[in-house]
Amino acid sequence: MQVRATATRRFLLETAARLFDERGYAGTSISDISALSGRTSGAIYFHFASKEKLALAVVEEHFATWPALVARVRAADGPALEKLVALSFTVARSFRDDVVVRAGSRLWMERKAIDEQLPTPFVGWIEAVTALLGEAREQGTLADSVVPEKAALGIVYAFFGLHTVSDALEGRDHIEDRLHDLWLLLLAALQADPDPEALLGRVHAGPALLSR
Amino acid sequence: MQVRATATRRFLLETAARLFDERGYAGTSISDISALSGRTSGAIYFHFASKEKLALAVVEEHFATWPALVARVRAADGPALEKLVALSFTVARSFRDDVVVRAGSRLWMERKAIDEQLPTPFVGWIEAVTALLGEAREQGTLADSVVPEKAALGIVYAFFGLHTVSDALEGRDHIEDRLHDLWLLLLAALQADPDPEALLGRVHAGPALLSR
Repeated sequence: MQVRATATRRFLLETAARLFDERGYAGTSISDISALSGRTSGAIYFHFASKEKLALAVVEEHFATWPALVARVRAADGPALEKLVALSFTVARSFRDDVVVRAGSRLWMERKAIDEQLPTPFVGWIEAVTALLGEAREQGTLADSVVPEKAALGIVYAFFGLHTVSDALEGRDHIEDRLHDLWLLLLAALQADPDPEALLGRVHAGPALLSR
Repeated sequence: MQVRATATRRFLLETAARLFDERGYAGTSISDISALSGRTSGAIYFHFASKEKLALAVVEEHFATWPALVARVRAADGPALEKLVALSFTVARSFRDDVVVRAGSRLWMERKAIDEQLPTPFVGWIEAVTALLGEAREQGTLADSVVPEKAALGIVYAFFGLHTVSDALEGRDHIEDRLHDLWLLLLAALQADPDPEALLGRVHAGPALLSR
């Protein structure tokens, strides 16, 4: 029974995520989720006390996606700047392909319409990028002028701005090409001995050890 | 009468913007706007046919803020990279201080909850930044590796991401310091002969010829 309840909860969460992603928070009702899932409203309320709690669960599920991935990247051997770039591509693909990630991101944008305290994003990313830049400094691959804490903020701004702009203008269809171009710019500032194309080539050719 | 009607419309638009900025689209009703403005709902509906149309008017007013400013910057004499940096500070201050700009930005984020087609942002900014980078190339101040069209996208991503992150983490209180730090990173990639601190010093010391 427990296993089945967990599977049902997950199924309802993903169904709700599809609707939140397509229609936003205000445009999605428990009735809509009931109709799409084929479950009664009562069954939905059994798992989630309210639409607010369901939205909160989607956002929390999105946030829960990352810590294990980040820990794996930080623990891996290899040049830190390559790990950072590879991580960004893994995350970008999740934003494009994972409906819970997409819905969680959308709901967070609409957070003022949701009567629940949502977790704060960005902080964990800023820490992770700062740490990877610090590792690059130890490896001697970071330009002298770069201050890891400050550059990490710039990288996080650019990465999240890319998702907003790409989503608005082209439905994220070209997100990997756009991210490649963004790194051409950022790596020219970050690398001690700039050769962004070569670094990107190594990342694209590398093993998918960062897949989730 | 026409002058007074225009002033009333503007007053209602700014009152609505204050509420949309604080509470979001779903959290704001015509009754709230009536209560805060001291005008009847009927008076509001005389100027704006619906809450959707009022939100659309706020977004359009936000978008209408920029073309004249951008045209003035592009027409001005001077080093193009300095004009670009100065423009970014002027826009950032507007995002922090102008409630119509802030509300328009918030409503655009919540666009899936609004049953009106809103204008598409970013395109005008991408064009303006591309043009300024092209001008920098002609002036010999742009690094050879920089492709204006691609770098312009990266700059626009970073600039809009900065607003999202700064708003979420610190209520935009330190937006000018954060923007300064972002340019330290980006200018290291953009300048043919990188000296970001010197360029930023000239911009901060320069005349406020870009004020709106």
